[in-house]
Amino acid sequence: MKTASIIIIGNEILSGRTQDTNSNYLAKILVEKGISLEEVRVIPDDHSIIESVVNNESTAKDYVFTSGGIGPTHDDITAEAIANCFDTPLVIRDDAVELLAMNYKNGKKDLNAARLRMARIPEGAKLIKNKISGAPGFIIKNVFVMAGVPKIFEAMVQEIILDMKSATPVLSKTLKIYKKESEISERLRNYADKYKDISIGSYPFENSGLFGVEIVLRHTDLRLLNKVFNEMLGDFNEPNTS
Amino acid sequence: MKTASIIIIGNEILSGRTQDTNSNYLAKILVEKGISLEEVRVIPDDHSIIESVVNNESTAKDYVFTSGGIGPTHDDITAEAIANCFDTPLVIRDDAVELLAMNYKNGKKDLNAARLRMARIPEGAKLIKNKISGAPGFIIKNVFVMAGVPKIFEAMVQEIILDMKSATPVLSKTLKIYKKESEISERLRNYADKYKDISIGSYPFENSGLFGVEIVLRHTDLRLLNKVFNEMLGDFNEPNTS
Repeated sequence: MKTASIIIIGNEILSGRTQDTNSNYLAKILVEKGISLEEVRVIPDDHSIIESVVNNESTAKDYVFTSGGIGPTHDDITAEAIANCFDTPLVIRDDAVELLAMNYKNGKKDLNAARLRMARIPEGAKLIKNKISGAPGFIIKNVFVMAGVPKIFEAMVQEIILDMKSATPVLSKTLKIYKKESEISERLRNYADKYKDISIGSYPFENSGLFGVEIVLRHTDLRLLNKVFNEMLGDFNEPNTS
Repeated sequence: MKTASIIIIGNEILSGRTQDTNSNYLAKILVEKGISLEEVRVIPDDHSIIESVVNNESTAKDYVFTSGGIGPTHDDITAEAIANCFDTPLVIRDDAVELLAMNYKNGKKDLNAARLRMARIPEGAKLIKNKISGAPGFIIKNVFVMAGVPKIFEAMVQEIILDMKSATPVLSKTLKIYKKESEISERLRNYADKYKDISIGSYPFENSGLFGVEIVLRHTDLRLLNKVFNEMLGDFNEPNTS
């Protein structure tokens, strides 16, 4: 199974100003694609931190996805840091200028210095188009560099997943049990011991004073999932399942 | 300034099943306390990964906050991994049993093996009470180990922040400008060059087709903040500020 990590770049996430939703959006898509998301790291807009974290993750994982820091302002330093990280020159590329220009009324005439910053792409990197803003992300080695604004990030993800090979996706079945987690956890452990291959997660919830647990079974084999699901269903004898 | 990192532990976050909100909740409180949040890491329920990440972060930062994996089920392995990480025995502690028992109708008589798992605390660690579930978190060295369920996590955070010294908090002022980011970014860069001490973030937004930028200024000195804010206000000549 291919592995991945997501790097969310931005002081606004670490200060609590902005709730990151990009990693959750991409996490769901990676599950469908059968790619194992191993870690999410949220780091600041700091050149040397970006460089070292991207370098580590790029070496350790099959895919790395970054979000944030590729806009037109002084605090947008991701492209520069990643170009450095791979020892590649960052240049204003014609193909990126074309994409950007299409987004403005007067085309290239509207491209001031700030906007041209968004056309600075590492040499040899592949562009990631987006239909929202024109400004492209890029792919260098196994690193997918995308925007932080959720609408643009999501548009870029939609663009890249078309090209990503699907592995066997991990499927899930959820059993909802209206008992406290501590009343069922011993039986659950037996299931976990019996079916070591299946990932069995236990997530307590409270709903208007009613306590319950969602048991999430994950595996690539739907028949095996259904077998264990039905065994649990009989065992826990609960009518509420989803 | 003291530094911190947050470690979110849980397969359910990495699979996209659950949107993490705990790190955002705590991030806001750390800003108020004048503690610099340097990184958030989301990692799986995996013994050796928890151990190595907690070990790294505990060495590198003043405070480490973890969320998740201290419930009663087989996939709750955080307490064990962190005890290992600090080479400390994990034992069922009387003080933790007392806290747990208070939460059940028949007190200690209701404590089955699964529930007693939640009283397993590293020797010498300080307990973190919570008013929601009874089951405590704990503090070992500079690591604060808390629950994943948001209501319980938040109750635990409220418990620990009482004891945390406040440093000079980082204050912020936000200027809302209804122009495209690329139209103001050169002037913004001049401000960033002129006031290197101040963190100046630029966050584009789109609201019913209107494009704008929120400029967030951050510094501990309110007078300096106000000075730069007013200078920008005159310069950008915009009526909409917050």
